[in-house]
Amino acid sequence: MPLEPYAYALRIRLHDTDAAGVLFYGHLFRHAHDAYEAFMEHLGFPLKDLIGTGASALPLPITQAQARYERPLRLGDRVRVELRVAAVRRRSFALDYRFLDEQGQACARARTVHCLATQDGAGLPAGLHQALAERVANAGLTAMEGTSATPGDESLPWERL
Amino acid sequence: MPLEPYAYALRIRLHDTDAAGVLFYGHLFRHAHDAYEAFMEHLGFPLKDLIGTGASALPLPITQAQARYERPLRLGDRVRVELRVAAVRRRSFALDYRFLDEQGQACARARTVHCLATQDGAGLPAGLHQALAERVANAGLTAMEGTSATPGDESLPWERL
Amino acid sequence: MPLEPYAYALRIRLHDTDAAGVLFYGHLFRHAHDAYEAFMEHLGFPLKDLIGTGASALPLPITQAQARYERPLRLGDRVRVELRVAAVRRRSFALDYRFLDEQGQACARARTVHCLATQDGAGLPAGLHQALAERVANAGLTAMEGTSATPGDESLPWERL
Amino acid sequence: MPLEPYAYALRIRLHDTDAAGVLFYGHLFRHAHDAYEAFMEHLGFPLKDLIGTGASALPLPITQAQARYERPLRLGDRVRVELRVAAVRRRSFALDYRFLDEQGQACARARTVHCLATQDGAGLPAGLHQALAERVANAGLTAMEGTSATPGDESLPWERL
Repeated sequence: MPLEPYAYALRIRLHDTDAAGVLFYGHLFRHAHDAYEAFMEHLGFPLKDLIGTGASALPLPITQAQARYERPLRLGDRVRVELRVAAVRRRSFALDYRFLDEQGQACARARTVHCLATQDGAGLPAGLHQALAERVANAGLTAMEGTSATPGDESLPWERL
Repeated sequence: MPLEPYAYALRIRLHDTDAAGVLFYGHLFRHAHDAYEAFMEHLGFPLKDLIGTGASALPLPITQAQARYERPLRLGDRVRVELRVAAVRRRSFALDYRFLDEQGQACARARTVHCLATQDGAGLPAGLHQALAERVANAGLTAMEGTSATPGDESLPWERL
Repeated sequence: MPLEPYAYALRIRLHDTDAAGVLFYGHLFRHAHDAYEAFMEHLGFPLKDLIGTGASALPLPITQAQARYERPLRLGDRVRVELRVAAVRRRSFALDYRFLDEQGQACARARTVHCLATQDGAGLPAGLHQALAERVANAGLTAMEGTSATPGDESLPWERL
Repeated sequence: MPLEPYAYALRIRLHDTDAAGVLFYGHLFRHAHDAYEAFMEHLGFPLKDLIGTGASALPLPITQAQARYERPLRLGDRVRVELRVAAVRRRSFALDYRFLDEQGQACARARTVHCLATQDGAGLPAGLHQALAERVANAGLTAMEGTSATPGDESLPWERL
């Protein structure tokens, strides 16, 4: 059974909005990444350790991102982000984000795909792979499938949100 | 025959980059929107006229957005954005963006979907619809199809980039 | 006796940093404004009520801003912002921000000056003026002085941080 | 005789604006930095060479920044930034920015102070120091003064804009 989604809270601030009075669409990806950073720290893999040239460096650039906007978000709105692991492959994973307002209504959804950018062909660290696999929320996209993925992980899901 | 893509130029600035030394993924959407704003002005529909409550107001929020990142962009890089109209419907349209480096290599792609948010059910202004339809780049997604779309335009393309 | 400063917490996220590996200087002002928004809500004057054309609309644009950077802030850093009211005038006020790291060391300071942009010459709402005046931290800049300021409040403090 | 100011052009884009319909104050510093980056490249010292660990690396963090806002900037506005060198010291320099609208009216001003962050006590590279000194706009703050400044350059000008 999948775990509960990881929850992250935020407020819509003035700089998030634009002259149309609502969240500028691009800023949703900033908030998704904030949630991702909190999630990775929660898993024991804070980004500050992954970035750079230290022993724990692990280049995990985002290779795909998408969002769907359903209800406008406005200045002062309190937003709850629910982060779920959509899929895990040997060298990549996909995360889903739901942005819920105070009434619990979905205002936006997003997905990011993260791929290991190392050259040696090694897979994700075992601890990270396991932590992600335990949280795979989508029954149709199991971590088992991922283990047989091609090195490029071209098959990672990228369907309609 | 489709028109040439609309071209927009930008430089990667320090605030575009992050501690990993490359473009922060979310900022790609900011640049895509800059290109969109220049494109709309080129078509005679500058966003400053569309936003607000004036006679020319036309709420066109982005309802979907996606990007694929292929090569990292770095501080100082000169980027050429090629903007194409992917599809036009009665009340919505989709735009494609290719981000090319100085060698002409694709570094990233993006798509945005824009939907009319008016309540009266009217379609896009005829002048805008025509200007977009003339630029539809994807032969498989003609403007004619769009005229029969449902009001919500749920069928707007959102496939793999 | 001045009240305790208003405290606001934040983390330095990846998008806050740049290719030099530290907080991009301009983003400090975004964080200062986030603290300001939280502070104004705490006082009972949330910005969502002040912006727009409603009965509670109160245009309070920032007319001056400055910052001093003392220690670099890096990805993952936990920052405590201490917000103090530096001065209150009839139609304007100045806020000071100290950005402290987890060891309590000052990493940056900032000041913003906010001026009422209404045309009728009226002062700040009494409730807001009083709430700010009670929090004036700098003994040399009392709210009493402010009451005799010229309409433009040209004399508002803007000295070295 | 001081040289003409260095000119940099920009448009106010949707993401620059906020729900109040005008430029979000913090974004002015982003634009100032864009002008600075173009200026440094013009002088032969592009930031991509200064950042990092290469032979030309030169850490020049901004230690102070300030802005004054005089007229609101709105979506679509064409802005001309005039960049002037306010002062040069042995290990630091100050830049002034004027933001002019299409009518040539000043909408905002800003200043940034940049200090060499190296530990060896060496001054700015001679070529950079000379290029900046030739452009010092303020007759009262000559480059000659700067050569005798203390290592910390505490005396760098930071007066009212």
